Amino acid sequence: VPAIVCMEQLVPFIRKLCGASGMTEEDAAAVADIYSRSTLRGVGHHDVNDLPGRLRLIRDGQMNPRPAISRLSGFGAVESYDGDNGPGELVCSFAMRRAEQLASDHGIGLCTVRNSNHFLAAAPYTEQAAEKGDLGLMLTRTKPVMGGPDGGPAVIGNNPFGFAAPSGHGFPLSLDIAVAYASYGRLKELEAAGQPIPAHWGRNARGEPTSDPGEVQNGGIVMPIGAHKGFGIALLIELLTSIIGEGLLVDEPPAQADDTGSSIKGVYTQTAIAIKIEALLPEDAFRARVSRMIEFIQSTNPDIRVPGERSYRQSRVIHNEGVILDAKLIDRLNEFAEQLGVEPLAPAGPEPCLIDTN
Amino acid sequence: VPAIVCMEQLVPFIRKLCGASGMTEEDAAAVADIYSRSTLRGVGHHDVNDLPGRLRLIRDGQMNPRPAISRLSGFGAVESYDGDNGPGELVCSFAMRRAEQLASDHGIGLCTVRNSNHFLAAAPYTEQAAEKGDLGLMLTRTKPVMGGPDGGPAVIGNNPFGFAAPSGHGFPLSLDIAVAYASYGRLKELEAAGQPIPAHWGRNARGEPTSDPGEVQNGGIVMPIGAHKGFGIALLIELLTSIIGEGLLVDEPPAQADDTGSSIKGVYTQTAIAIKIEALLPEDAFRARVSRMIEFIQSTNPDIRVPGERSYRQSRVIHNEGVILDAKLIDRLNEFAEQLGVEPLAPAGPEPCLIDTN
Repeated sequence: VPAIVCMEQLVPFIRKLCGASGMTEEDAAAVADIYSRSTLRGVGHHDVNDLPGRLRLIRDGQMNPRPAISRLSGFGAVESYDGDNGPGELVCSFAMRRAEQLASDHGIGLCTVRNSNHFLAAAPYTEQAAEKGDLGLMLTRTKPVMGGPDGGPAVIGNNPFGFAAPSGHGFPLSLDIAVAYASYGRLKELEAAGQPIPAHWGRNARGEPTSDPGEVQNGGIVMPIGAHKGFGIALLIELLTSIIGEGLLVDEPPAQADDTGSSIKGVYTQTAIAIKIEALLPEDAFRARVSRMIEFIQSTNPDIRVPGERSYRQSRVIHNEGVILDAKLIDRLNEFAEQLGVEPLAPAGPEPCLIDTN
Repeated sequence: VPAIVCMEQLVPFIRKLCGASGMTEEDAAAVADIYSRSTLRGVGHHDVNDLPGRLRLIRDGQMNPRPAISRLSGFGAVESYDGDNGPGELVCSFAMRRAEQLASDHGIGLCTVRNSNHFLAAAPYTEQAAEKGDLGLMLTRTKPVMGGPDGGPAVIGNNPFGFAAPSGHGFPLSLDIAVAYASYGRLKELEAAGQPIPAHWGRNARGEPTSDPGEVQNGGIVMPIGAHKGFGIALLIELLTSIIGEGLLVDEPPAQADDTGSSIKGVYTQTAIAIKIEALLPEDAFRARVSRMIEFIQSTNPDIRVPGERSYRQSRVIHNEGVILDAKLIDRLNEFAEQLGVEPLAPAGPEPCLIDTN
């Protein structure tokens, strides 16, 4: 049975769970903001649904809630850091803040962090940057899960990335994608719904194109968008993250307790890039130009939703009406709350969460 | 009847044609280098085959062979310029050199140029940057030729881009793509060869998926890779080129002789980005990491050619054996040569062009 929870209850609850798990107050607030933003997108995964897994990793000593993020290298507007196996949400918040600062100083900034963990999604970070007048990009590598241009075994991550830019439309233009046709999350949803997939999206265990999302998940492989094109973009993202950031590369395994070699435990390397719009033109002029582009597109084809539009509308609904969470998720979160001495999460009452002031 | 021409004859011939068309000696050499690099890729279009069209535009006063490229704006590591309706090959050579200089000064550099023209391809510029120890990216907008995520009329360019990075494999990792499944050039080739296309590559004039490349070209539309994914990447490229560079946007028409509004004649805005590898790690270490990635990929799946590998092998062959050019192309080039007072191009003799020293 799902329950409705107001964001005004959920976000402080997340902040308290993170703080009680060992994060500093400031870090817990930053991480709670990332969970808030990702949950408001209304996607239903890579949001608060991922929090129990993170809390478990921290509890089991596999992820560091109080990382000493340290500078590896840098010159001018580019910097690399070691994330000390901290939560991706925390390490990437740091990376985007650094990129924003570098962009303030140099017009553009790039900050890469190795030894990091899963970051949920790109949009929370890029939209933070866009709210500050930057064009923000966030890239992440993953371990190899995607086939080559013509299929075959997994040779590279599906390396998600996103960008966000201010517009005059009340929401940022915001893309958040992986470079395979479908994420495993999406395949699971389609399988549950009994929906077929286009045959070029994936291969089955015998290497053949298949329209069955279950076959792709069971020993098959997801395919890069546009074959060699998505494959090449995935390589670019590996270059811009783990290769320049000296993180784990392609199949390199993370350090284990008994390892004497690599000291890197976090599989992920992420890179934040910010471009200070005012370095080139007034932000108002930029917003007007973005909106001019959106208007041209939608006047030509009214069916098109531009990236970020759907998730913005979702966020308004979730702000006002709360978010629908699975009872099992609430139970798991409240188990952690009990262990950590945090007051449990209460479902919303019959009143709306917020009075919509729009 | 095609003829074989040695690059040692072709490149000085191009340089002289460009010089005689009004370019400075330095600019003519830079443009000839771009034509050399694009022709060596062995693609058969967007190379010396495009030169007669450029010479015609210059002769007819529609493109400026001696542009006064002027700074519009900038701060720190980002700059925007007006290309004064110069040849794309010239304006983009300038942009990449500026980006390289900014990267030397700041670790990363971004230079955008509006009021430019077609640049042939991204690879010649990005590979120049990679040879100097940079990770180079080159992006271009085009006028709208691509449908939205679900088809419909053209709403955005197929916005080509590319990157190149040094490797330890003797050639740069180098991607050069547009974000539609197929370029119009590729569709023409497939149509001529009587080959069908996957039905998701394009739509016919009635908006239906089609496997006939001719139907896509005759009133149909090319589709973005991965639907909303390629569409979103095209928007990002529009942002990073014409929106920040204040060039012509989506459907905005270039200035005509009788226009009083826009003074921009060149439809294209391009952006060069360079990242100085040594700002983060030694170039040798970077090359070793790129090669480690290539080796992992090819040991897992020996069928995969990484981006830049095929064109590198082609370039060795063309260097040694010459390039096969259509007799009609040679005739057109020699007509310009006669008009411009340049000695005509001679086909290669029976000897190989170069003694292969590898």
